[in-house]
Amino acid sequence: MDGKASAELLTKVRSENPVIHHITNYVTVNDCANITICVGASPVMADSPDEVEEMVKIAGALVLNIGTLNKELVESMLIAGKAANDLDIPVILDPVGVGATRLRTDSALRIIDELKISVIKGNAGEIGVLAGEKATVRGVDSGTLEGSFAGVALKCSELTGAVVAISGEKDIVTDGKTVLSIENGHYMMGNLSGTGCMAASLSGAFAAVSGNYVESTASALSLFGLCGEKASVYAKGPYSYRTGICDELFRLKPVELAVDAKIKDITGNLE
Amino acid sequence: MDGKASAELLTKVRSENPVIHHITNYVTVNDCANITICVGASPVMADSPDEVEEMVKIAGALVLNIGTLNKELVESMLIAGKAANDLDIPVILDPVGVGATRLRTDSALRIIDELKISVIKGNAGEIGVLAGEKATVRGVDSGTLEGSFAGVALKCSELTGAVVAISGEKDIVTDGKTVLSIENGHYMMGNLSGTGCMAASLSGAFAAVSGNYVESTASALSLFGLCGEKASVYAKGPYSYRTGICDELFRLKPVELAVDAKIKDITGNLE
Amino acid sequence: MDGKASAELLTKVRSENPVIHHITNYVTVNDCANITICVGASPVMADSPDEVEEMVKIAGALVLNIGTLNKELVESMLIAGKAANDLDIPVILDPVGVGATRLRTDSALRIIDELKISVIKGNAGEIGVLAGEKATVRGVDSGTLEGSFAGVALKCSELTGAVVAISGEKDIVTDGKTVLSIENGHYMMGNLSGTGCMAASLSGAFAAVSGNYVESTASALSLFGLCGEKASVYAKGPYSYRTGICDELFRLKPVELAVDAKIKDITGNLE
Repeated sequence: MDGKASAELLTKVRSENPVIHHITNYVTVNDCANITICVGASPVMADSPDEVEEMVKIAGALVLNIGTLNKELVESMLIAGKAANDLDIPVILDPVGVGATRLRTDSALRIIDELKISVIKGNAGEIGVLAGEKATVRGVDSGTLEGSFAGVALKCSELTGAVVAISGEKDIVTDGKTVLSIENGHYMMGNLSGTGCMAASLSGAFAAVSGNYVESTASALSLFGLCGEKASVYAKGPYSYRTGICDELFRLKPVELAVDAKIKDITGNLE
Repeated sequence: MDGKASAELLTKVRSENPVIHHITNYVTVNDCANITICVGASPVMADSPDEVEEMVKIAGALVLNIGTLNKELVESMLIAGKAANDLDIPVILDPVGVGATRLRTDSALRIIDELKISVIKGNAGEIGVLAGEKATVRGVDSGTLEGSFAGVALKCSELTGAVVAISGEKDIVTDGKTVLSIENGHYMMGNLSGTGCMAASLSGAFAAVSGNYVESTASALSLFGLCGEKASVYAKGPYSYRTGICDELFRLKPVELAVDAKIKDITGNLE
Repeated sequence: MDGKASAELLTKVRSENPVIHHITNYVTVNDCANITICVGASPVMADSPDEVEEMVKIAGALVLNIGTLNKELVESMLIAGKAANDLDIPVILDPVGVGATRLRTDSALRIIDELKISVIKGNAGEIGVLAGEKATVRGVDSGTLEGSFAGVALKCSELTGAVVAISGEKDIVTDGKTVLSIENGHYMMGNLSGTGCMAASLSGAFAAVSGNYVESTASALSLFGLCGEKASVYAKGPYSYRTGICDELFRLKPVELAVDAKIKDITGNLE
C-alpha cells in the first residue's frame, strides 16, 4: 500500500464520521476522546455492563484498552465485544501492561480467546508476552523484547488470528502474511502519556471505514506519527507537544498524508 | 435581561467563590474542574454514595452529568440530589447521551422524577428525548431534532418543571414562559470533547449565586460562547482552542461580558 | 540542604527512571501521569484490589491520593501499601479533602494507622485536620488553619511518624526534627486543578531515589515551584500555565535547580 490509500481512508473517516466506542482506562480517556474527534470520528465512552451492548450497536469500531483494568471492566469488554462480533464491527485491543500482572495477562488472554479481535496494538514487550516470547513488561509504558519485532508480530498474529501492530521507533503491522513497517514518528512521542492509547483510538477510526485491517492500522499509525513529526518542530515539552499533535491532526490535509506517509511492505525482506 | 446583568453575576461568582459539587463522567472531569476554577468558583468531585450527602452540604450547586453512567453513580446522584433539594441548593442535570441506551434514558427520567432539578442542559437530541419528541441521539455528542428548538425546550420545561437549555449554534434557555436565545459561540466548540460538560459546570457556578435560573444559565452559556469566540481567533486546532477558551475565561473582565453578551428575549417572537 | 543536593536527586530520578505506582483520583490522574514522565520517572496507575499487590512490587514509590475516594479504593490502598511496606518502598499520602467528609477522614486515619507512611503532603487545612488542630477544609482545594504551619507540621509528624509537607505560599517540610521552608512557587499554581496531586507525584519520584524523605520532598516541592515560576512569565491563564509548568519541568537542567532552589533550614528559627 502507499500513502495515497491512507489518504483515501482519512477522507473516508472524515466523511463517514464513525462512532468509536471505547472501553478504556481513566488516565488517558480524555485524549482518546479528543484524538477521535481530531481525526474526524465521533467518540463514545461507556463501560457499564448495563449499557455497553446497546451502545456498541451504533459504533463503527470498538476499542478495548486495559490500562486501568478491573473485573467489572473485563465483563463489560466481553459483553460489548460479543455484540460487536455479532454485528461484524471491528474490535481493537490495546493490551496495556499485559505481563505486568496476572489480572492483565489473564484478562487479555481471555478477551482474545472469547472474542474475535480485529487488531491488537501494543508495544514490543506487550506483543511479546502475547506471543509467548521472552519479553519483559515494566509497568505500562515500556517493555523489551528479544529478537525481531516482525517475527514476534507474525507469531502473535498466528496465535490470535488478529492483525498485530507493534509500536516503536519503526512500527510493524502484520496480518500474519503481509508485513508493513511504518517509519513516521518522533522520539518525543515516548515522553507523553497516552500516545499508545491514542494510536489505538485512531486504529479504531480507520478500521471503521475499511475492510482491510492491515492497511487501516498502518494508515492510522502513519498518520499519528506524521502529526508527531510536525508538532516536534515547535513543541517545547510534552504538553505543548500533545497540543501540537492533536491540532496538527485536526487540520492535516489528506494530500499531506499521501505524500509523507512512510509505509513500506517488508514482507519478503524481514531482518 | 442584558449583558450587564450577566456581568454582575460573573462578579458575584468570583467574589463568593461557591463550591460546585460534581458527580460526573471520567472523560471530561478534569476540564470541568478547571473551568470551574477559571470562572472563579471552586470544584469538588466526589461520587461515593458514602460521602456525597456530606459533601453536597458545603456546595453552592450540584452538577449531575451522566456521561459515563453506571448504577452506583445513579444512586450517588439521587442521594446527593435529595440532600441538595432539602437545602435548596440548585441541581443542574446534563443528560449526556440520553436516548442512546435504556440505562441513560431510565436513569435520567428517574433523576428528574425523584429530584427537583433546577436546570437541564443538553443538546437538541437529548432535550428532544426528554420532551418525548422525535429525536435521535447518536452516541453522546450529537443528536438531531425535528421541529423548533424553542418549542421543544418549552415542552421539556413544562414536563420537568426545570429551566431547560438547548446548546447549539444558537442556545435556547427557557423556564416555560420566558424564552431567551444566546448567540455567542463558535463552531469550533463542537470539535472539542467536553464543551457541553463545561457549560454545565459554568451553569452550576452561576446558579449558585442567583435565584433566577433562566438568567444564570443564559449568562453562563453566553460567557462560555464569548470565550469560544475570543479563542477562535488564534487557536490552531482543538487542543490549543481548549487552552484558549479556559485562559480567556480566567482573565475575562466582567465589562467585556456586559458589552459582548448576545442574549435576546424571544418570548413573543418564536420561529 | 542546598539546591545542589536537590539537583543531584533530579539527576538520579532521570537516570534511574523509577516506576511510580499511583492509586489516585480520576480528576487529575492524567496530569499525575504526565508530570511523572516530565520529571524523568515512569508512571503506573493501577487500582484494582486484584492487581495492586503485584504492581507495586516493580515500583520505586507508591502514591496514595484520596481525591475521589470510595471503599474499594481504600481497600486497594491498604493492600498496595502493605506490600510496599514489606519491600521498603516509600509510600506518599496525599490526604485530599480530609476533614470534608467522614469517609475521607476515617480512611486517611485508617491508612495512616495501618501503613507506614513515608511522606504526607497536604494543604494547611488537611494537615491541620490530621494534627487534630482547629482547621477547616472546604471541599478539596482550600483550607484554613489557625496557628503556625511549622508547628502543625511538627505535630502531624509526631503523631504519624511520617515526614510531613504543607504546601502553601511557603511550603514547610519536616520529619519532626528538621524543619525546611521552600519559597519557590507562584500564586497562579493555586488557579489550576491538580497542582497538589502533581506535587505528590513528584514527591514520590524523588523519594524513590533517596533515603532521606525530608530532602527528597523539599527537593520535589522546590523543583515544582521553580517550574511554576518559570511558566508564570508567559502563561496567559491556567491552561497555558499547566502546559508551561510541565514543559519547563521536562527540559529543566539540574544546574538550574542547584542555583534557583529556595530551601531554607528554619529548624532553630520557627516563627
